Amino acid sequence: MSIDRSSPQNPGTLLFGVGLGPGDPDYMTVRARDIIATADRLVHFCKKGSRGNARVTADAVIPPDPAREIVLAFPVTTEVPVAEDGYTGPIAAFYDESAELLAAEMAAGRTVAVLCDGDPFFYGSFMHLWRRLAHRFPTEVVPGVTGMAGAWVRAGAPITWGDDVMTVLPGTLSEAELGRRLLDTDAAVIMKLGRNLPKVRRALKAAGLIHRAIYVERATMAGQVVTRLDEKADDTAPYFSMILVPGEGRRL
Amino acid sequence: MSIDRSSPQNPGTLLFGVGLGPGDPDYMTVRARDIIATADRLVHFCKKGSRGNARVTADAVIPPDPAREIVLAFPVTTEVPVAEDGYTGPIAAFYDESAELLAAEMAAGRTVAVLCDGDPFFYGSFMHLWRRLAHRFPTEVVPGVTGMAGAWVRAGAPITWGDDVMTVLPGTLSEAELGRRLLDTDAAVIMKLGRNLPKVRRALKAAGLIHRAIYVERATMAGQVVTRLDEKADDTAPYFSMILVPGEGRRL
Repeated sequence: MSIDRSSPQNPGTLLFGVGLGPGDPDYMTVRARDIIATADRLVHFCKKGSRGNARVTADAVIPPDPAREIVLAFPVTTEVPVAEDGYTGPIAAFYDESAELLAAEMAAGRTVAVLCDGDPFFYGSFMHLWRRLAHRFPTEVVPGVTGMAGAWVRAGAPITWGDDVMTVLPGTLSEAELGRRLLDTDAAVIMKLGRNLPKVRRALKAAGLIHRAIYVERATMAGQVVTRLDEKADDTAPYFSMILVPGEGRRL
Repeated sequence: MSIDRSSPQNPGTLLFGVGLGPGDPDYMTVRARDIIATADRLVHFCKKGSRGNARVTADAVIPPDPAREIVLAFPVTTEVPVAEDGYTGPIAAFYDESAELLAAEMAAGRTVAVLCDGDPFFYGSFMHLWRRLAHRFPTEVVPGVTGMAGAWVRAGAPITWGDDVMTVLPGTLSEAELGRRLLDTDAAVIMKLGRNLPKVRRALKAAGLIHRAIYVERATMAGQVVTRLDEKADDTAPYFSMILVPGEGRRL
């Protein structure tokens, strides 16, 4: 087991996975700013035809610079459920090819910073590059403020009190599974809403939690939405949305 | 239900809850640095006779300045289990008195920044001041990198992959409860170890997870320890320690 691959002070580091936080550029860490300002290559993921959100977050620090940038455009949209045919093969090949592209840059001595939404090691696409590259090149991973922390702060909703148990649930779980787990936790964060929102709503109702659920969209970014879920009329939920069920543990 | 109390651009804000991140001052956000550099009063919690960890983190930005500082020393140690007699009463009175102390500062027009380890709304002591003060004074809460994010990055251990469910568990739960929940999650973070470590270790063994468990102490700070739990010989675990059980979800 190899642990502690990060080496913040190591001048030989070539690969950086940089958490940029929830979206407000002021919520970037000082370390993240330093790295993206100086790295030879800036890498970001995006959907075909649109600019990646992490790259937009970085605009406040580094203006667009075609000579420095490497854009990794997903071959299939992240909305396709992974279980469906046609996802796993192309996306694994995409990560293989992307890793080799970055490896060639680093082999030539250039530093490569991968811009990550939130925290790189919390459901991050970067992790798929990291497991292909971190054993080959000196690597530093910079933690970031998670999207969920941006959400609970902007919702004015402390998420865990006292000895609360917190569960993070992907909205991709079945309705029964979501319901069961919601009944068995003090606080919950439900990610990956998208077309799962009607199902998630039903699971929250079944668990008697619909009135405690807060819907947050684009937390800390332009177009932020914060509303009680039971006051949200439609069932649209973009990629950057989640539901919070704040804990009700010990108040002192 | 009052939501979105935070107002980052509001020049009238008086109370700031400032997440300083896991300990490495470079993991402070830009917003946190700006606020602590300029606030009229800097507040930190500590145990009697020792300097608070958040204040130590802030040393890189703001040197000690008795004229600006307000120290809130807990009347009982956080190691006393809450269920035991003699905890709840004194600590509630302590938060009441602390809140009034800060209210008097703000009533005089001074801005007050409460320094918080990690993120202010994730098991934060600040929350007990926030619920006494945020409805009375314009308040901004600045999210921070959590201690657990600092831990999983320094452990080289991505915590959640694909559709992993993550559970955050206080070590104060019973052994049976810990074991049951560990069996029912993909990834886990166990906080509040202290004297609970032997019990937590037994629960991890019972759940068959002891070989996946990573012990992290003082992540990103001086004296950081990262080790497999089954290679940790003793059962001492200070306040800033936790156990990670990384998820093993979908690799692409």
